[in-house]
Amino acid sequence: MKRIYADNAATTRMSRRAIDAMLPYLDTAYANPSSLHSAGQEAAEALRRAREEVAACLGAEPKEIVFTSGGSEADNQAILSAAALGERKGKRHIVSTAIEHHAVLHTLKKLEKQGFSVTLLPPRENGVIPPEEVERAIREDTCLVSVMYANNEIGTVEPIREIGAVCRARGVLFHSDAVQAVGHLPVNVKEDGIDLLALSAHKFHGPKGAGVLYARAGVPLVSLIEGGAQERGKRAGTENIPAIVGMAAALREACEKREEVNARLLPLRDRLIEGLSRIPRSALNGDRTARLPSNVNFCFEGIEGESLLLLLDQKGICASSGSACTSGSLDPSHVLLAIGRPHEVAHGSLRLSIGEDFTEEDADYVIAAVSETVAYLRGISPVWQECLAGKRPFILP
Amino acid sequence: MKRIYADNAATTRMSRRAIDAMLPYLDTAYANPSSLHSAGQEAAEALRRAREEVAACLGAEPKEIVFTSGGSEADNQAILSAAALGERKGKRHIVSTAIEHHAVLHTLKKLEKQGFSVTLLPPRENGVIPPEEVERAIREDTCLVSVMYANNEIGTVEPIREIGAVCRARGVLFHSDAVQAVGHLPVNVKEDGIDLLALSAHKFHGPKGAGVLYARAGVPLVSLIEGGAQERGKRAGTENIPAIVGMAAALREACEKREEVNARLLPLRDRLIEGLSRIPRSALNGDRTARLPSNVNFCFEGIEGESLLLLLDQKGICASSGSACTSGSLDPSHVLLAIGRPHEVAHGSLRLSIGEDFTEEDADYVIAAVSETVAYLRGISPVWQECLAGKRPFILP
Repeated sequence: MKRIYADNAATTRMSRRAIDAMLPYLDTAYANPSSLHSAGQEAAEALRRAREEVAACLGAEPKEIVFTSGGSEADNQAILSAAALGERKGKRHIVSTAIEHHAVLHTLKKLEKQGFSVTLLPPRENGVIPPEEVERAIREDTCLVSVMYANNEIGTVEPIREIGAVCRARGVLFHSDAVQAVGHLPVNVKEDGIDLLALSAHKFHGPKGAGVLYARAGVPLVSLIEGGAQERGKRAGTENIPAIVGMAAALREACEKREEVNARLLPLRDRLIEGLSRIPRSALNGDRTARLPSNVNFCFEGIEGESLLLLLDQKGICASSGSACTSGSLDPSHVLLAIGRPHEVAHGSLRLSIGEDFTEEDADYVIAAVSETVAYLRGISPVWQECLAGKRPFILP
Repeated sequence: MKRIYADNAATTRMSRRAIDAMLPYLDTAYANPSSLHSAGQEAAEALRRAREEVAACLGAEPKEIVFTSGGSEADNQAILSAAALGERKGKRHIVSTAIEHHAVLHTLKKLEKQGFSVTLLPPRENGVIPPEEVERAIREDTCLVSVMYANNEIGTVEPIREIGAVCRARGVLFHSDAVQAVGHLPVNVKEDGIDLLALSAHKFHGPKGAGVLYARAGVPLVSLIEGGAQERGKRAGTENIPAIVGMAAALREACEKREEVNARLLPLRDRLIEGLSRIPRSALNGDRTARLPSNVNFCFEGIEGESLLLLLDQKGICASSGSACTSGSLDPSHVLLAIGRPHEVAHGSLRLSIGEDFTEEDADYVIAAVSETVAYLRGISPVWQECLAGKRPFILP
């Protein structure tokens, strides 16, 4: 059975170029870039080149790039750094959104325990955070606005440039969790007005264990990990050169191929959306157009997302009900609740996140498989039967 | 020119077994272990196996293993966790040593700023921390003792089991930075009486970007990185499966081969020590026998360690003056100062950390190269000439 991998928002397969870029550094070119001997200096040179490449892809300067172990670490460090700066200025209010990734939400929760006050903006029902709501929420004591570039579950792309302009005008630091966006959308920190940004390599066909915290020159950072003087004293620990080199190669490739890949994905995404919309009492989550070209997310009334996933898996389809980072949790997605889906409906969600190798035939196979499986699960659902019998109302139209 | 890599304390070359174990997870087996589909569950299974293997090598239980991005992160998390627990019990005193790695010392510095009081025990001149000094330093309000397993610069192996027994008897948590020890010495957390331990994969021929925090069952941990529920909620971020699998393979291999490798290294280390001891006004740093089988560390009066390194590099020898993590710093090693070397002598240090591929011929070549280079550097040193002319006293005998 052919396997169709439609879970690229959870993680992606490394590109051949990224693997090939890594391999020498896993093998013969293994020295520590902090070592003064020539082998060490070759590693330091590889690190320098990777930093330049990553900076160039983001519209940043090399000195604004801090290599981390991933997107979560970068999000944590960005937010804690802005909070520490705010604290010193007596500003202890943060504006963010109800649909952020947990790497952001849980860090904000930690700050609340330390006396910070946090305003979580609700999205519109399409998942969009209106810039004017951000503006309204900013107070005299606001030290940070944190809005994700694109949502990891429902794929909604936020009006980042407008929000960046609001923050700049109000003199408030702006952080964006761009883990789902970098490599897929034309992210440019300078043009977008972003002061702090987090990205993760394994979301754009780079290696796991590598991320970046972009911090605009002049924004002071706190260290999460103390120790050696690596990353200009902002992130201790021997640099993961193979992963950093692989990340830089993957990012350059993703940026080069972005338009071409998106032109391929867009009609496939829309084919999926149209096909799945034909399932009765289904609803697309997220905006129809302000949306990642890879993302499809639906709710199907009367089913459990987990059962749907497991049956699709048996048909060779790798999908997700929402964020991989919260799988195993019985709570419905906080993102789906935030856009107004009732609990019962939020439980019946499906996220398909497609990649370059996805084809039109795959789309049709997925549509047929999901349609059949939803029908099957509804057939064995007592709740659905009660709705059919008129004993309880349907929720979705 | 043959390259002789004698900087294994900075980082090691990955073993073929570790690379081969990683490769599938960099390529086809790329799924996110948090994903419910079968590809994700295969990754989760690899993670489970790696955890079991690592636990078995340390004498620990799988649930006591937290995968981190490296040794520094593990050290930071261990110490901050013990401090948070101490704080809740009103215990804000920590005992550690003056010769710890900066991942420990800088974390303790951070805690001092938060009101903790820290006692840094001075070592004996051989680098040994006497258990009775640890015992004497423990107070009613001591929440943690942190003593490294083996020193990264001078190679001294600490009496960990005796210190562990002291801590257990006094009911104080015991953390050991075992970054230089695991894979090289018979570390067993249960027998050693260790509650918290940090290790780093790239120090035992595993990949960079992977480490472990061992935390004895029942010791509560704080998260450095908030977000998803990975690592039982103690370390957010998509698991770096390739590196974790590579680390487990490298650790198992290192533990299997340890005795054989050490039997090979010991006479080579001693040959180096004897050969370099013949250089006039030189001094071995660290204990002659309670010492890592890979470590040789000397001070040579009248020279700069950095110049020595650069000239040895031209002769194909990769060595270090001390810790790679502080290279670029002009301060002399805090470890050498702590064992009583005067500033002038501490500046003239050389660390050789040999690996499995090191031969007797290499040892003789290194002895000759170091002897010649030290003589050359002394020949152009005004200070050395003044000493020779009797205008200032020599420091070393």
